[in-house]
Amino acid sequence: MPELAESDREALKRPFCKALLNLIRAQDRSGAMERDTDEELLAPFIVTKIQKRDIPMFGDPDPDILMRVEQIFMAICWLIETETGVAAAPILNIHHEGWGRIVVLTGRLVAVNAHMRELHRFGYENLSLMEEKALKFVEEGIKAVRQFPDVAAAG
Amino acid sequence: MPELAESDREALKRPFCKALLNLIRAQDRSGAMERDTDEELLAPFIVTKIQKRDIPMFGDPDPDILMRVEQIFMAICWLIETETGVAAAPILNIHHEGWGRIVVLTGRLVAVNAHMRELHRFGYENLSLMEEKALKFVEEGIKAVRQFPDVAAAG
Repeated sequence: MPELAESDREALKRPFCKALLNLIRAQDRSGAMERDTDEELLAPFIVTKIQKRDIPMFGDPDPDILMRVEQIFMAICWLIETETGVAAAPILNIHHEGWGRIVVLTGRLVAVNAHMRELHRFGYENLSLMEEKALKFVEEGIKAVRQFPDVAAAG
Repeated sequence: MPELAESDREALKRPFCKALLNLIRAQDRSGAMERDTDEELLAPFIVTKIQKRDIPMFGDPDPDILMRVEQIFMAICWLIETETGVAAAPILNIHHEGWGRIVVLTGRLVAVNAHMRELHRFGYENLSLMEEKALKFVEEGIKAVRQFPDVAAAG
């Protein structure tokens, strides 16, 4: 594993990466990852452009990839919840060919509406870019909840 | 195939069964079902309580079942669209153990919020009951769109 850039070491200390790490550790029921560092736990989320070139686009995407996409959106939900106080949940609708739609729902509101493709090659160039992309969805979600608070609170 | 009850023959002529039949025929790209009657096309949707008892709950649900659940919700979307004029789309999030959540989205609105379980045994006692259950979701959707028209129209 290459050493983290200074900007990525900073990203590790900010809320998005912290939320993601909390989720990953919470899901590690067997304790298999107990001794892994934050950096090691987030390493699978980093896939550089050069690495992507070597990943074929046939076959079904690795189940671990779908798990990581879900973890990213659960962390996004977590930050939306923290900021707005309303519960948020992701729904993933991924086609086995590697593309799909992901929504974050708060009450009766679609707070975030995301489309993803080429999931075989899912990953980010670095942690700062992962945070940047995730925070765009967090912002979208918070904005939607504030725009339609009654819908976000509807059961 | 047992003969249809009079109430089911009536149901076949009403909008929900018609929408469902249109969808099934539209998806029959190879023409394999071209000669099937309406009754034959809807037969797989009917599973009586006695039949359900004999269907085991282990293993993954048959992919054909997931297809039928999706067709039901697409027909529900169709009726919501016809009534309200806004486009509706289902998202299925089915766990492989046979339970899951299904939402119908119109714009930024969760028009219908459904939870299903025991999908291994998916099916209705008869066509009238299928229509009755589906129309409850259609009503829920139309009501939600009318309650939050700006959210249903939001992109």
